Amino acid sequence: MTKHMLRDLERLRDSVLKMAGFVEDAVHTAARAVATRDPDAARAVLGGDAEIDELENLLQEDCLNILALHQPVAKDLRRIGTVMLITTDLERMGDLAVGIAERALELASPPLVTIPDRLDQMAARATHMMRLALDAFVNEDAAAARAVIGLDDEVDEDNDDLIRHAIGEMKQSPDRVEAGVALFSIVRHIERIADHATNIAEDVIFLVEGAIVRHRHDEIAAVAR
Amino acid sequence: MTKHMLRDLERLRDSVLKMAGFVEDAVHTAARAVATRDPDAARAVLGGDAEIDELENLLQEDCLNILALHQPVAKDLRRIGTVMLITTDLERMGDLAVGIAERALELASPPLVTIPDRLDQMAARATHMMRLALDAFVNEDAAAARAVIGLDDEVDEDNDDLIRHAIGEMKQSPDRVEAGVALFSIVRHIERIADHATNIAEDVIFLVEGAIVRHRHDEIAAVAR
Repeated sequence: MTKHMLRDLERLRDSVLKMAGFVEDAVHTAARAVATRDPDAARAVLGGDAEIDELENLLQEDCLNILALHQPVAKDLRRIGTVMLITTDLERMGDLAVGIAERALELASPPLVTIPDRLDQMAARATHMMRLALDAFVNEDAAAARAVIGLDDEVDEDNDDLIRHAIGEMKQSPDRVEAGVALFSIVRHIERIADHATNIAEDVIFLVEGAIVRHRHDEIAAVAR
Repeated sequence: MTKHMLRDLERLRDSVLKMAGFVEDAVHTAARAVATRDPDAARAVLGGDAEIDELENLLQEDCLNILALHQPVAKDLRRIGTVMLITTDLERMGDLAVGIAERALELASPPLVTIPDRLDQMAARATHMMRLALDAFVNEDAAAARAVIGLDDEVDEDNDDLIRHAIGEMKQSPDRVEAGVALFSIVRHIERIADHATNIAEDVIFLVEGAIVRHRHDEIAAVAR
């Protein structure tokens, strides 16, 4: 690898981590806005999304420029491709944080539904998966990426439990249906954030091993065991 | 462009259209399964998803092989990159069709909620957007791609109307809450299918013009007017 290429790849990696930090903050703040019924926190998430979108555009343009300049092959080509894929996932996670914040605004006023502590826990698990997937990316560690994919089961359990709770709230009274639907949406959004973390982990395995692993979770789980 | 490269690009394009045909059928069948409460149709969608996943993997591997073999630059590089992005969107649309089919199974037994005709119409609009976006891809027509993005407003109106209906059903009786939530989920899934069609249209604009247009819809709409 040339010195220029190495420097460009390091810059890309730093930008990905910066963007991921913003996304993690957004998800965390949105989940707190739900739990504490804090409209100001929700509005902070809405206001911060333009910055995440701008970072995505800058990163994608940087990737294209590096491709045009260095015409990398093999693993270096996969490194750039992986950054493009991860960036797309991070941007969608940012959009999902916005969706959660919008629902948080609806939940901030009566009629109130109970927000279980497990919601915060589920959001923390999803961002934890994201952080581990990015660590696996930085260290180019396929085993660590496979471990991330295994964590999705816990998020699925949170998801099922919280959806049962939301449906229970809606059944309590017709007045609670809208709030229950908002809570249901929030849970589904967090679940999709965890799905994107899984996508990033899959992309890391592709980066390291050069094989596409999407839709091959059974095999991945077998190897991880 | 070499004769080999041209032949490879034509093969990619044909595979994308084949995959899109499968996805369109899956979405259509899933929406029909909801409207006609037909569990067999729903199960056909569940059974067909492995084929869509396999097509995605074959297409992505074909793209990587072409990149390694021809090391394309500029527009040819963007052509391959666009196929990779479109393929990812198509696969997720297939997953969303599976999600709709799973909910259709829940809606096939009592207590029954009313399924408005508008649901079928919304699904037809979403697949129509997908087809137009793929035509724009085949013809490398940025103006046609911009027109697709403008169609999303109609899907949004369907979405709002159908969600109001689902909430109304849930308020009728606690017995209808689960079915109402299933209907709500179906509407959100169709909305996301239309979002993926928009993504494909954005990728086509990128292919033709070399500029990234994600998150720049206001500008796109201004140009389309």
